Amino acid sequence: MNEVLPDELTEQSDARIVFLVMDGLGGLPFEPGGKTELETAVTPNMDRLAQTCAAGLIEMVGPGITPGSGPGHLALFGYDPVRYNIGRGVLSALGVGFELEHGDVGVRLNFATLDSAGRVSDRRAGRPTDEENKRLVAKLTERVKAPDGVELFFEPEKEHRAVMVLRGAALGAQLSDTDPQEEGATPLRVHAYDSESRRTAQIVQEVLDSAFEALADEPRANAILARGFAAFHRYPSLHERFKLRGQAIARYPMYRGVAKLLGMDLHPVPDSDEGSIAALGDRFNDYDFHFVHFKAVDSRGEDGDFAGKVKAIEAIDKLIPAVEKLKPAALVITGDHSTPSRAKAHSWHPVPLILASPWSRPAGLTGFGERECRKGELGIFPAMHLMTLALAHAGRLAKFGA
Amino acid sequence: MNEVLPDELTEQSDARIVFLVMDGLGGLPFEPGGKTELETAVTPNMDRLAQTCAAGLIEMVGPGITPGSGPGHLALFGYDPVRYNIGRGVLSALGVGFELEHGDVGVRLNFATLDSAGRVSDRRAGRPTDEENKRLVAKLTERVKAPDGVELFFEPEKEHRAVMVLRGAALGAQLSDTDPQEEGATPLRVHAYDSESRRTAQIVQEVLDSAFEALADEPRANAILARGFAAFHRYPSLHERFKLRGQAIARYPMYRGVAKLLGMDLHPVPDSDEGSIAALGDRFNDYDFHFVHFKAVDSRGEDGDFAGKVKAIEAIDKLIPAVEKLKPAALVITGDHSTPSRAKAHSWHPVPLILASPWSRPAGLTGFGERECRKGELGIFPAMHLMTLALAHAGRLAKFGA
Repeated sequence: MNEVLPDELTEQSDARIVFLVMDGLGGLPFEPGGKTELETAVTPNMDRLAQTCAAGLIEMVGPGITPGSGPGHLALFGYDPVRYNIGRGVLSALGVGFELEHGDVGVRLNFATLDSAGRVSDRRAGRPTDEENKRLVAKLTERVKAPDGVELFFEPEKEHRAVMVLRGAALGAQLSDTDPQEEGATPLRVHAYDSESRRTAQIVQEVLDSAFEALADEPRANAILARGFAAFHRYPSLHERFKLRGQAIARYPMYRGVAKLLGMDLHPVPDSDEGSIAALGDRFNDYDFHFVHFKAVDSRGEDGDFAGKVKAIEAIDKLIPAVEKLKPAALVITGDHSTPSRAKAHSWHPVPLILASPWSRPAGLTGFGERECRKGELGIFPAMHLMTLALAHAGRLAKFGA
Repeated sequence: MNEVLPDELTEQSDARIVFLVMDGLGGLPFEPGGKTELETAVTPNMDRLAQTCAAGLIEMVGPGITPGSGPGHLALFGYDPVRYNIGRGVLSALGVGFELEHGDVGVRLNFATLDSAGRVSDRRAGRPTDEENKRLVAKLTERVKAPDGVELFFEPEKEHRAVMVLRGAALGAQLSDTDPQEEGATPLRVHAYDSESRRTAQIVQEVLDSAFEALADEPRANAILARGFAAFHRYPSLHERFKLRGQAIARYPMYRGVAKLLGMDLHPVPDSDEGSIAALGDRFNDYDFHFVHFKAVDSRGEDGDFAGKVKAIEAIDKLIPAVEKLKPAALVITGDHSTPSRAKAHSWHPVPLILASPWSRPAGLTGFGERECRKGELGIFPAMHLMTLALAHAGRLAKFGA
């Protein structure tokens, strides 16, 4: 219901919407009775907004569902993350700037080391440099060919990661990973989960076999492991759905990939989070919607570094006044999922949210944190409704019905 | 799910349900840090009910969606407002008591003044009296004829407003407004949004041309502007869905129209809000469900009159004890949408709600207001589930499953 309605009600306007997304923002107390990372952090700017504006908790996919970064961001942007379920292969290809066409099948590759028995001895091939990665990709591009009727592309990502894309008629993407996910095991053979993907499974296996031959003389990166096969289907853009010209200011490929998938323009990669905020000011009036992504909060959570996550949040708080000076009609501060440092991983816990606008109804919270947001005006709600709320608070939605 | 379940579970009973609806009840603080209109109002009776009964906030259509009065009321009565999306033309026709038949196309008319260049100089024709309105409608009825196979009806509403209904086989209602919505512009020609409505567009244009001829000698009301074309489809009634014989006590045509659409009987129009409460007592035991509508709260909000809205709420609070004396099994006090006086318009903000019954679980609120209701037992929930809750609290719902 609410995924459809805003499409018809959205209106052109000069009102700007800004989403500041701290990856993995939500957390948990490290010790029983303690505070979460966000509750511990000294965040005077976000506290002030929580006191005077609307706040709540968002559930990214559904109760108890731990989202990957793709579904988390799709939900933030108003796309039902279950309906628009994209695979990592597609995200990775978009992230490196590859121009996917409808029907392309993408997959993420790891360069890996096989021992003399053909077993994986290093799933990351000793983490090659990005230069080394490029050399290996060039080698694959030169030596590995797909059968007639199929085009094959290899693209470097970072370190041990690369992307492969197949293009051709009637390709299927219901394919199993070849990455055994543990060292000491042999790479798996690819197989099809549905009949439409059977021919593609054969093609991919031939391509992988040919790649292993091409890399046989490499001392470390003598194999590739594939995971996350996914077909690319064009999504309706933010502009088609919400009349929003959007730009993404993000420093990591994956988040740039999601933004591109929804038709956002990509700002050149800033060199720091401060640079991201400066970038926001550069072309503030050229876009209706600005997505700014901050990675460090999640990284410290994944590291299990509670104090580091606290500091990463505090660093973002210092950037808030510069965003406020731009006077966005609606400013959203939230995350794409929780990453409690105690869990060292994504989790399903709802993510705290501030929605600041002259039209937000304040609930009188004391500050920005999980427990306070629980009492906020917006309650706990599915993240896919956030865009509707942001559009409403920015005055970009018409009334429904007479 | 919840729209369907109650249909099967409802039971006959002597328990009476009363909905007191203050149009546009929800609000916002006028100044940052201030209170809303409802929080400002001195409402000892509603505060007492909020302290001892269940309370919450209702979202009429969905997060961020600003409802018109039609969708707002449909949701209150347990009808999914997106599925049951009715146009203003149908509501207006029902509101003036016109007996619509399945397939009729209704549209709202304004009498307007055109200048010698054919431009709209007054969209309301100087607000004619109701008597003058009746004379103009009689003139149209006498002089304007529809083509063969189509019946045409004109009905007066109030001041400059009237209703036109077309009846015939295979009429379409996907028609554009002819009201340009601004003075200085010429009336628009009607066009069809779908192929099924093309023939109807031609018929309507002929009718409007003929109406302009008929009114050519009028000094002020020499034109009509049409907006909100809508086809009438019979809805399942409150009785069919919930086994409720309902009556509506409402003073304004639109609200009477919605009630009639759902099969409620219409009490003769009371002359005041006090009169509405007296009317409630008249036939209290003849109906299972009583809808009492109060308009002034919304009107003051639309005027941007914060103090006036506060007073209008206080005036309703004084009427509550008379309602309580009737001992309804469930008493709901709420609104159909928010109308913050600062916005001078409907808004999407959730609407505060009290549900008073011997079976309500109290949350110990301090009084009736947006922020208190946020903490209420019922939380924030879609308004279309309110009817189920009211039925339950009135003991009119059977257990689901064995």
